[in-house]
Amino acid sequence: MIGAGNVGFHLGKALSLLPNADIIQVYSRTKKKAQNSAQNIDCQYTTKIKNIKTDADLYIIAVNDAAIGTVAEALSTLPYLQEKLVVHTSGATPSTVLSPYLSRIGIFYPLQTFSIQKEPNFKTIPFCLDAVNEKDFLLLENLAQQLSTRTARIDDAQRAVLHVAAVFVNNFTNYLYTVGADITEKGGVPFDLLKPLIAETAEKIRENAPRDMQTGPAVRGDEATIVRHLDFLEGSGYEGVYSFLTEGIGKLKR
Amino acid sequence: MIGAGNVGFHLGKALSLLPNADIIQVYSRTKKKAQNSAQNIDCQYTTKIKNIKTDADLYIIAVNDAAIGTVAEALSTLPYLQEKLVVHTSGATPSTVLSPYLSRIGIFYPLQTFSIQKEPNFKTIPFCLDAVNEKDFLLLENLAQQLSTRTARIDDAQRAVLHVAAVFVNNFTNYLYTVGADITEKGGVPFDLLKPLIAETAEKIRENAPRDMQTGPAVRGDEATIVRHLDFLEGSGYEGVYSFLTEGIGKLKR
Repeated sequence: MIGAGNVGFHLGKALSLLPNADIIQVYSRTKKKAQNSAQNIDCQYTTKIKNIKTDADLYIIAVNDAAIGTVAEALSTLPYLQEKLVVHTSGATPSTVLSPYLSRIGIFYPLQTFSIQKEPNFKTIPFCLDAVNEKDFLLLENLAQQLSTRTARIDDAQRAVLHVAAVFVNNFTNYLYTVGADITEKGGVPFDLLKPLIAETAEKIRENAPRDMQTGPAVRGDEATIVRHLDFLEGSGYEGVYSFLTEGIGKLKR
Repeated sequence: MIGAGNVGFHLGKALSLLPNADIIQVYSRTKKKAQNSAQNIDCQYTTKIKNIKTDADLYIIAVNDAAIGTVAEALSTLPYLQEKLVVHTSGATPSTVLSPYLSRIGIFYPLQTFSIQKEPNFKTIPFCLDAVNEKDFLLLENLAQQLSTRTARIDDAQRAVLHVAAVFVNNFTNYLYTVGADITEKGGVPFDLLKPLIAETAEKIRENAPRDMQTGPAVRGDEATIVRHLDFLEGSGYEGVYSFLTEGIGKLKR
């Protein structure tokens, strides 16, 4: 497991618990992270790419996007690595960053947001997989199916689509939660009161198209409420976001 | 129960099931809705305000915001209604729309998004309450506490804060889900793959401040990814939202 960040830490542990898989070594350039993850998995670690063991069947690159190419290049100089299956776990980076250096390449992308503190439930996490060779794909699929109930073959173009969409439903949504928290805190109301609404908003689209679930002044064309909200927001710095999203929702009606 | 929309339908039913409360009549100007809700609650109904029974202890106005004032005015002309407690259930409308017509007024606002098809779990829904008279407030609080584990006294100014914040975390968030669904569908990828991410994004802020949970290219200042995403979005109509929200997240860093 190459990388000991949020994904490497949790995915490494989960893989190590499978009956027919074994993480033999963790690499991170940060000693503390490498140690931490290796201790959690109960395996060896290294902080030097040149000391990465060359007898693994699979090399999983779970480092930040900017470093994937550099790591792949360094790996390619190790003996036997040209014959090995090397994948990365990123939604944002095409598999083609690996191809100048390695030939048996693939993708092993768990589509979820991870944080060190929180144990993920891999069973519910979709694995987006791809590989140049059919046999390698089947190996990745077999591994993923032991971790999760949902796997899909997703090529670079489709993964780019997913990654942009994920920014909207994850990063931007979290930003709206931040705005909601800021507005309530400045207005002297506990943000907690909005948490059941947030949970229900996410819950509703499990079974329904989000478009059909749209409510609020923008989709009703309720100008009076919109003007009142914009008055309220004056000077908050959030008038622009409010107007822009209101306009976007307004276009849904057509 | 005056109104048989999403809130009136479900709240009326929930109240009717309390051991010490009884819905004696449902009003809706739409006969079918009045019938439906009355049948669900097992009580009488009327479609004419002049036929509203005058022997209730509490009148709950759960009609759309634009009609609350008109309904209050019409109620005020009925015998005995000047002595009765009249509340509305809206987050968007100040209690002052009732005060020109009635004196024992209050607010009984369940802070949640409702739809007819889906049975709400009132236990988890915060009730935002207010009343002009202390005794009336205690009556409302007692009722709400039988329905829910969370009640709060929230005045008009605080409710306005909550309502604006709710637009951000509910209406705007749902719009971002819609954009995510649109991008994935047009890109030939199942939107389903994003649903665990959506659930986890909402789940994470139950215990953490949303600001601390912010991830993604905008908060990392990852310009290369942002440019790639904007290229991808060209012609989709979503470049503007992407830029605007990215800019907003960028400001969080400072």
